[in-house]
Amino acid sequence: MENKGQHKTGGKPIRCRAAVSRKAGEPLQIEEVVVAPPKSHEIRIKVICTSLCHSDVTLWKMKDPPAIFPRILGHEAIGVVESVGENVDEVEEGDVVIPTLIADCRECTDCKSKKSNICSKLPFKISPWMPRDGTSRFTDSKGDVLYHFLHVSSFSEYTVIDIAHATKVDPTIPPSRACLLGCGISTGIGAAWRTAKVEPGSTVAIFGIGAIGLAVAEGARLCGATRIIGVDVNPRKFEFGKKFGVTDFIDSRECGEKPVSEVINEMTDGGADYCFECVGLASLVHEAFACCRKGWGKTIVVGVDKPGSLLSFTSYEILHSGKSLTGSLFGGLKAKSDIPILVKRYMDKELQLDEFVTHEVSFQDINKAFDLLIEGKSLRCVIWMDK
Amino acid sequence: MENKGQHKTGGKPIRCRAAVSRKAGEPLQIEEVVVAPPKSHEIRIKVICTSLCHSDVTLWKMKDPPAIFPRILGHEAIGVVESVGENVDEVEEGDVVIPTLIADCRECTDCKSKKSNICSKLPFKISPWMPRDGTSRFTDSKGDVLYHFLHVSSFSEYTVIDIAHATKVDPTIPPSRACLLGCGISTGIGAAWRTAKVEPGSTVAIFGIGAIGLAVAEGARLCGATRIIGVDVNPRKFEFGKKFGVTDFIDSRECGEKPVSEVINEMTDGGADYCFECVGLASLVHEAFACCRKGWGKTIVVGVDKPGSLLSFTSYEILHSGKSLTGSLFGGLKAKSDIPILVKRYMDKELQLDEFVTHEVSFQDINKAFDLLIEGKSLRCVIWMDK
Ligand SMILES: [Zn+2]
Ligand SMILES: [Zn+2]
Ligand SMILES: [Zn+2]
Ligand SMILES: [Zn+2]
Repeated sequence: MENKGQHKTGGKPIRCRAAVSRKAGEPLQIEEVVVAPPKSHEIRIKVICTSLCHSDVTLWKMKDPPAIFPRILGHEAIGVVESVGENVDEVEEGDVVIPTLIADCRECTDCKSKKSNICSKLPFKISPWMPRDGTSRFTDSKGDVLYHFLHVSSFSEYTVIDIAHATKVDPTIPPSRACLLGCGISTGIGAAWRTAKVEPGSTVAIFGIGAIGLAVAEGARLCGATRIIGVDVNPRKFEFGKKFGVTDFIDSRECGEKPVSEVINEMTDGGADYCFECVGLASLVHEAFACCRKGWGKTIVVGVDKPGSLLSFTSYEILHSGKSLTGSLFGGLKAKSDIPILVKRYMDKELQLDEFVTHEVSFQDINKAFDLLIEGKSLRCVIWMDK
Repeated sequence: MENKGQHKTGGKPIRCRAAVSRKAGEPLQIEEVVVAPPKSHEIRIKVICTSLCHSDVTLWKMKDPPAIFPRILGHEAIGVVESVGENVDEVEEGDVVIPTLIADCRECTDCKSKKSNICSKLPFKISPWMPRDGTSRFTDSKGDVLYHFLHVSSFSEYTVIDIAHATKVDPTIPPSRACLLGCGISTGIGAAWRTAKVEPGSTVAIFGIGAIGLAVAEGARLCGATRIIGVDVNPRKFEFGKKFGVTDFIDSRECGEKPVSEVINEMTDGGADYCFECVGLASLVHEAFACCRKGWGKTIVVGVDKPGSLLSFTSYEILHSGKSLTGSLFGGLKAKSDIPILVKRYMDKELQLDEFVTHEVSFQDINKAFDLLIEGKSLRCVIWMDK
């Protein structure tokens, strides 16, 4: 079903395969879909491979908004530009790009500032549409609209993305590694590198060492942290952790009555320089804050809790501790300038990405990728569109 | 009653006048007290003048612990070293010092680090004793113990302080200005300068423009902030504000249904770069956070709320905003290195301190200083011991 003769497809709809999520929690269906040509400021890409991130699973399981069906999920990917719409001069046909859920429009105050990565022109939202005109580029075989996801929708052989959501990268990077940089792994690395600005020689504590927590460890290791403490309830993750520089493990179920923060305060003689909450539990943010070093400790919120869940601190805790609390979107990375740096560091063998890819499957086995992630067996499962 | 021939008093108790707080909320009584000689690591100083800070009033009114009576309050002061105990080599008789409620021991990890001002060896507490040996140096005419306050107790002609709580300063600075640097004014300046690290050209919002809020404004002005928004319920304070660089005023009672944060977001097209909560209300911390700029805004908690009052944020607010929340003790200043810098900047006519001193009274009129502060008439009232 794949479209041949790419140089002739521009401007026309493309029929291809996509894995459509038609009902909450039910297996994705590989269907023939129609992908409209890119409009102004948009590009259409042929997806090479895509990896599965927890947000895909969350929005696949979810019954109520922002969940919506039928939808094409997927947001960690790499692809080749098939055609470009009007007003696109950053890339051309054949360029290799990584889509991102956040925009980098290069025009607004935030995108022009070194300090922010939260675009004001195309603000982050879990929208079912293209960001600029609020319509879909996907229809199914009956002509009905299929919804987008995170402005990427990479579970399709072709997808349309806004140019603000695409970063051109060195085409020699292996695609199964590059695709990871589209969301979770970049978020973790960025949280240590850009948001926390981990200093050489420092001590880091990471609550939850799934893929994102391990990416935080990898980011902290790259920044020169000398002690990286991983906290988790699953001791199997400890083995993975070692590969990413985790030096100490705490099995939080084995702390007994003692709060984990107390264990860490004792181990570190007063707290870690940086604490990262990667589980997505408000109560753990409090634990993390409690074991970051008075005077200078930073707590970084990386995990996503349920909407509306509250983080509570006594004003005294904040006031007199000299500690700070912060969060970031996409690890504080500016997509178009920071992703190419990460690509280069991988190519220079500084950044480890290979170790995150625990599984690879062909597109037709995409539901297996869901099973592996849900069962906690995979860090990242790469889905190859052509295989 | 003042002690003559200072060079002969060392090693002996000194009889002098002190304003003793004997019962919660009742006028201080000027009494003859006995001030014991300094022990190891301590110095005894002759207080030149002292100013009244809100914490003095708070602990004077309070009936329950940490309030305790009879006590010698006062913690913003300047004095001349009368004698030194053993193991003191930083100062000698005749040196001019500013006592501080926080210690700078120069030995612990924190005091040696540039990043922290929260001494680990002599941690901050509202203790009724000397910090090292937990005893008092004051007795009344009946020989009964009088309690210390914040390791300063400057409402006495003589007081004993730990050398870690004393910063030697240029003796040519006018004492009625220098004494302000012992607590509130330094805290405000430091919050902008050291904790927030306000950048030139930035926009600042200050919730509560009493003395500390105005000191934040002064600190922000010194750091080059170009827009300083003061929020208060008392329009009289707006006039003071102008002297310290406040460029915009918001009377929060006149915002109607609209939250102040919304007004500030509109005025600043998306929020202030730095927001300071100086009132001490958890709810205002939330307002401050809501109007600091996404992407890079910092909210700094300066005001002291009731113990146990909670600051609550949804994890989404923290997570995806790129904003940070922080607090600091004594404005993040390292007493022994930063107070001399502030003294120099005052002497160089860069830092404004004169404008904070709205009233001056003689020691015998100390209760008038309380009235003025409670009635909101004074920013700082300086109490002269010799007048
Ligand atoms: Zn932008
Ligand atoms: Zn993701
Ligand atoms: Zn110390
Ligand atoms: Zn004070």
